[in-house]
Amino acid sequence: MSEKRKPSGFLLKQRAFLKLYLITLTEQERLYGLKLLDVLREEFQPFGYRPNHSEVYKALHDLIEEGILEQVKKKKEGMKYQEVVYYRFTEEGYKKAQLYKRQLKTELDRCEALIRKAIKDNFS
Amino acid sequence: MSEKRKPSGFLLKQRAFLKLYLITLTEQERLYGLKLLDVLREEFQPFGYRPNHSEVYKALHDLIEEGILEQVKKKKEGMKYQEVVYYRFTEEGYKKAQLYKRQLKTELDRCEALIRKAIKDNFS
Repeated sequence: MSEKRKPSGFLLKQRAFLKLYLITLTEQERLYGLKLLDVLREEFQPFGYRPNHSEVYKALHDLIEEGILEQVKKKKEGMKYQEVVYYRFTEEGYKKAQLYKRQLKTELDRCEALIRKAIKDNFS
Repeated sequence: MSEKRKPSGFLLKQRAFLKLYLITLTEQERLYGLKLLDVLREEFQPFGYRPNHSEVYKALHDLIEEGILEQVKKKKEGMKYQEVVYYRFTEEGYKKAQLYKRQLKTELDRCEALIRKAIKDNFS
């Protein structure tokens, strides 16, 4: 029974994959609250992957909980009463984010190797 | 709510990955009941993936339920009272298995492309 709960180390989890993208979007100053889901869906559409609302916002929430990102509200230029919500790194956040990215690079390389192995083992 | 249940099309599921390997092991006449878990764990060990017992046997069970594989009991050579359990394709099973493999090839190619995209988008 206890074996069931141990992670088997198959492919990386969707949550981690999305957190990685959210970090990179923050680096590029492209992480806006409202457009986020559309930006990601458009990005992955050619790959048959359509992240759902709850997965994306859970990933964002995780990064805030972990003290990596923080929300900022900014008045829209020329719009007196409208504001946009975007995200930036906290003071400590950038360093933590870089560490997370390094871990994810290792994980993505591992997953790529596992998939290539499966292609080789089963189709050659 | 209904969105939550729709598959988002992220990476392929572990169950499908294991079914693919079980089909290929059957083609190679290497699918024995008892050794199965060890064979797979050894195969994936360098990739940090250790499939657990229940996942492997659920995948095997699926293939039997779908009429692709069947169990055969064979007397061990020279051992009068011992038998080994192995698996082979049913009469219709081989064709179904080939169809499944073609689908999985497409899926693995898609996953490889998605992972390569993530590496490119986040680390270059």
